[in-house]
Amino acid sequence: MGGDFGPQPVVAGAMAALHLYPDIERLYLVGIEKEIHAQLDGLPHDAGRVSVVHASEIVGMHDKPVEAVRRKKDSSLSRAVDMVKKGEADAVLSPGNTGALLAAAQIKLRTLPGVERPGLATVFPSQNGRFLILDVGANIEARPQHLRDYGVMGEVYARQILGCRSPRIGLLSIGTEEMKGNELTLEAFQLLKASSINFVGNIEGHDLFSEKVDVVVTDGFTGNVLLKSCEATARFFALWLKEELSENLLRKAGAALAYGAFKSIKKKTNPDEYGGAIFLGVNGICIKAHGKASANAIRAAIRIATDAVEHRVNTQIIEELRLTHEKNNAAQPASAASA
Amino acid sequence: MGGDFGPQPVVAGAMAALHLYPDIERLYLVGIEKEIHAQLDGLPHDAGRVSVVHASEIVGMHDKPVEAVRRKKDSSLSRAVDMVKKGEADAVLSPGNTGALLAAAQIKLRTLPGVERPGLATVFPSQNGRFLILDVGANIEARPQHLRDYGVMGEVYARQILGCRSPRIGLLSIGTEEMKGNELTLEAFQLLKASSINFVGNIEGHDLFSEKVDVVVTDGFTGNVLLKSCEATARFFALWLKEELSENLLRKAGAALAYGAFKSIKKKTNPDEYGGAIFLGVNGICIKAHGKASANAIRAAIRIATDAVEHRVNTQIIEELRLTHEKNNAAQPASAASA
Repeated sequence: MGGDFGPQPVVAGAMAALHLYPDIERLYLVGIEKEIHAQLDGLPHDAGRVSVVHASEIVGMHDKPVEAVRRKKDSSLSRAVDMVKKGEADAVLSPGNTGALLAAAQIKLRTLPGVERPGLATVFPSQNGRFLILDVGANIEARPQHLRDYGVMGEVYARQILGCRSPRIGLLSIGTEEMKGNELTLEAFQLLKASSINFVGNIEGHDLFSEKVDVVVTDGFTGNVLLKSCEATARFFALWLKEELSENLLRKAGAALAYGAFKSIKKKTNPDEYGGAIFLGVNGICIKAHGKASANAIRAAIRIATDAVEHRVNTQIIEELRLTHEKNNAAQPASAASA
Repeated sequence: MGGDFGPQPVVAGAMAALHLYPDIERLYLVGIEKEIHAQLDGLPHDAGRVSVVHASEIVGMHDKPVEAVRRKKDSSLSRAVDMVKKGEADAVLSPGNTGALLAAAQIKLRTLPGVERPGLATVFPSQNGRFLILDVGANIEARPQHLRDYGVMGEVYARQILGCRSPRIGLLSIGTEEMKGNELTLEAFQLLKASSINFVGNIEGHDLFSEKVDVVVTDGFTGNVLLKSCEATARFFALWLKEELSENLLRKAGAALAYGAFKSIKKKTNPDEYGGAIFLGVNGICIKAHGKASANAIRAAIRIATDAVEHRVNTQIIEELRLTHEKNNAAQPASAASA
């Protein structure tokens, strides 16, 4: 209910997913029953695999996260997370208020064993493929061990969902050399280096799209700024191009001939194509779709959810983190308490 | 000498600047005399306004900044900064090792009265104009008062050099609301709010290019990641577009017709067009050009230097910072010592 376009794209995307992915046993649409039915009734769907669950309240985009979770107990967002908590659903997806979804997931689902701070992970396009970046906004005051754990969680995700055999993990910094960075990244560098994952060192903004790494690790503040700035750069680049191409008849004719190229680029750089961000580290699968997600983006986000469930991403995260923490504690017994 | 392409673009750009800007009284080319003359002799130039100053060493891109300044005393970089220190030149410009240039400027020129940490400022294109962003990499562990001072320095620069009448200053954060941010930005927000500059609040990555602000304030780590990531996004967008446009004959024909549009976009998004970054807060004018700066970028960077000298940017920064710190100390006498 809380996405920018209300239930329309959510219901349409969910029905497309249900049709395409037979492995979905049942899909619950949570929100104001009447509004959901108004959308649902116009669409062909497999009624035997859909349930509408009524929730009377809506969390708005400007509601304060923790307050929204505490006060609006009957919101679609809260009720949907409750279903995962009670084991009635395997995964929850929302295009609503990001902060409220993360708060609801952390408060209700709690974290996986070994996870101190969950992180929000999203996929970016690279030169010929894609890469994962986390955290893009859940943990604003990250500590070094959180970044190390993001490396481990990202590694599991890249291996299981993105299909990388031996994912290369990079730490976002301001230079590739080991001694370049701030206090947080310098310490995180050492922890990542000491872990068992394939840590390839620092990665700079310049090399983000060069396929040098499969997973980029950063704190939630930097990751959020990065995500939004890159999206803005691509959007303005496209806007400037459009303006330039409509400046005269010759250019307009050229643009018409080359139309297919612009369509491809739009698809490649459209955040919608990448579905949604996954909140890694909570005890359940929780996917955040873009507030302006189209039906197709919702469909893609549901695919992420089903992949994460099928590949048992959380079970593997627990196991990998356990091994990492054991190794770390064995190497530095004195700092075990703080880690 | 230390730029990626050696003295060629520097000498060519400098001679173009000398020709275009009659307000330059004398231009010193510092470096290996023989190599500079080899470039200079092939170019038409006003010999009465050019001097070659010999320096036998070169700071490489991988030299450690402080070590390079201490050990390579006869490098072109060190000697050029020395000339500003001794009052023989008003400004220094280098496309060499960024860290070494900043270190040389801080060690030799020292900071302006009232400046704790200088910041590197650079200009970005916006929808229809441009905006300033600082710090993009000088001060990696910034404190809140540094960000406030960047606001003040950026305000002076935007007013004097970018021609904004009443520059709007924004603080880079992860949401527009006052309570969104990390510890650093939350405190900096209050300091900026209490200052006399036209502080308009937080700005998100999404809105960077939307002309909501004229100056974006951030810490050196985030600013450096942002600068490089935005450049990388634009570069890859252009690369993908080029690949798509050469995929078949129809698209190639279209691209040929619309050639002017691509040329315009390239110019608009080319970092070269924006000349260089200015190191604000040191006692002298110090400009960092891109390592891969073309002759035209060097020419543009020299224009920034002459503008900064003519508009007495540093004198105004001293005055504005003095007023800001007085106001801050009057408001919070208890914290005066720490600010």
